[in-house]
Amino acid sequence: LVFSMASASTPVGPPPECHPIHKVVVVGGTHGNEYTGVWCIKALMKRADEVAKLWPSLDIETLLSNPEAHKANRRFIDTDLNREFSEKRLVEEKGMNSTVESQRAQELDKLLGPKFGVEQPQTDVIVDLHTTTTNMGISLIVPEGDIEMIQAAAYSAFKCGGEEGEARVLVHSIPRNHRPGLSSVARHGISIEVGPVPQGVLRHDIVEKTDRALNFFLEYLELRNKDKAAVDNILESYYPEKKVPVYRSAKARAPGEMSGKIQWPCDPENPIFPAVIVHKSIQDRDFHKIKKGDPLFVDLDGNVIPYSGSHGDEVYLIFVNEGGYYYSSSGTGIGVAVKAQVSLNSGMTVE
Amino acid sequence: LVFSMASASTPVGPPPECHPIHKVVVVGGTHGNEYTGVWCIKALMKRADEVAKLWPSLDIETLLSNPEAHKANRRFIDTDLNREFSEKRLVEEKGMNSTVESQRAQELDKLLGPKFGVEQPQTDVIVDLHTTTTNMGISLIVPEGDIEMIQAAAYSAFKCGGEEGEARVLVHSIPRNHRPGLSSVARHGISIEVGPVPQGVLRHDIVEKTDRALNFFLEYLELRNKDKAAVDNILESYYPEKKVPVYRSAKARAPGEMSGKIQWPCDPENPIFPAVIVHKSIQDRDFHKIKKGDPLFVDLDGNVIPYSGSHGDEVYLIFVNEGGYYYSSSGTGIGVAVKAQVSLNSGMTVE
Repeated sequence: LVFSMASASTPVGPPPECHPIHKVVVVGGTHGNEYTGVWCIKALMKRADEVAKLWPSLDIETLLSNPEAHKANRRFIDTDLNREFSEKRLVEEKGMNSTVESQRAQELDKLLGPKFGVEQPQTDVIVDLHTTTTNMGISLIVPEGDIEMIQAAAYSAFKCGGEEGEARVLVHSIPRNHRPGLSSVARHGISIEVGPVPQGVLRHDIVEKTDRALNFFLEYLELRNKDKAAVDNILESYYPEKKVPVYRSAKARAPGEMSGKIQWPCDPENPIFPAVIVHKSIQDRDFHKIKKGDPLFVDLDGNVIPYSGSHGDEVYLIFVNEGGYYYSSSGTGIGVAVKAQVSLNSGMTVE
Repeated sequence: LVFSMASASTPVGPPPECHPIHKVVVVGGTHGNEYTGVWCIKALMKRADEVAKLWPSLDIETLLSNPEAHKANRRFIDTDLNREFSEKRLVEEKGMNSTVESQRAQELDKLLGPKFGVEQPQTDVIVDLHTTTTNMGISLIVPEGDIEMIQAAAYSAFKCGGEEGEARVLVHSIPRNHRPGLSSVARHGISIEVGPVPQGVLRHDIVEKTDRALNFFLEYLELRNKDKAAVDNILESYYPEKKVPVYRSAKARAPGEMSGKIQWPCDPENPIFPAVIVHKSIQDRDFHKIKKGDPLFVDLDGNVIPYSGSHGDEVYLIFVNEGGYYYSSSGTGIGVAVKAQVSLNSGMTVE
């Protein structure tokens, strides 16, 4: 399942100030009904020779991460694979749980990691390709403080046209050891999330956007390996104030609320069927501002449920009506974000 | 699972020239991951008292047709329920096949039919609510020659704004005994198919469109039961030439091709994963004309595959990139149609 494109290539020695980034694994199908990533890795394999010439310092492999769920056209068979890479699931419960996905997570950790242990993971970067049913455009999701990923995402987002081109950087601040996602298995990880596209469907335009974001991301890594000073100059020309505009989770203000998410109630008879619908005034309006009192949901009687201000009086909605979030194991609800800026030098949020 | 809203209501005696239409069953969830219909029947149940007053001549029931597939958020568990109502499946193979859906089909035939047998089916009309991932707007799908359904669909399509309001009548000419769909179990059947909406997702706008089409359809039946001559006058004011514009399947011209569908090849390793993508120039362009030589698909190498003229030099594409049609058991491919007209008097296609 792992296909190496340039295993014989010699990595270019990095300048002393930066660690080498050599082995990159591009992953599709972590959620089995997100077809775009699977198409993109198949297409990448087909142009392996071209890829090896284009980015000679990188050893790029591809991987179909959840083949069983993919063949069944389901997000997952038993449990969400992208929640299986916590210390609890990988180490403490090792051998105790036997879902399709917990077993696959053990395999992937051996193949790409290990995430927890004395030795360093075998993989420098995991690029995990995802799709969303929401109008999120190209979202490059990276960890706060991971300077390599922040810079690579900032480069790719700019080359994709930035916010006007519907390309944005999203940061989260969960430390690597606490992140349960597949991309946390490598030294560095990024998720590229593109939409809107239905689950179990391939759209040509969404495939092209995913390819574009991925190609610029890999181009950055190649340029960085060759000449870090030169690529720093490029980034500074894109972001003259050395700050990258990003979105990050909004903290919950109301007690009992989850940070970063406005949860919706579910049908008492069917836990994956919502009891309310996202109101049409916010459908497809990801990254738009919503104020306390604005329409948020509508119920079976047609009653409109307004935004309560739970995450602040004015917030930005993201992942508005994401099909994957109909599963409580994936976290039901609408994402809530605030605008922020991240320093190009530290990778940390600045005011 | 069948909820009756007006079982005690007295049907208005029909004028002598037309049969009464009394018992109407509105069905959702025939495909378990099409959520809109399920929402609409739940909402309809909640306003049962209002509905009984609004349309007193109708005895309206609602039904969740494939509860197991719905709870699993899958099109079907074993086989497509909407292909189970053929004589072969219902009668010849009775007791011999034991898929979840073949058993459910037997139950539904008992509850709503029987479709085959000496006695008349218990249900006058089945309205089966479907969704599509494609940009089909509101499609009212009715059998050629079923004058009651043609007229009701023509009324609803006009009230929804006609082609400008993205509401269209689609006719097929398969005789009732040969149709495998659930709506063929009753004396009359219609499918209301609305999109675009991803599978397993509820969209407020799509729910509203479905409700609107359903309400106008039921309004027509009520008006018809009360005063057929008056409703004939209304229809003639909508369609002064007594002809309803419709779309119908295009016949295959090339040998070995399927009528009404341009099939796509699938991945050799995964029969539900296409080997080509619908080209971006036709994505979301349902009911647009395509000419021989126009781009149709794109493959993994990026090669564009043009339309071969297999169904005529100029045809209209419908169900362009429908997620349900990724399943070979549901018929992989893109729909192909031609424009036609149906007589308001005979329900038959006229030149």
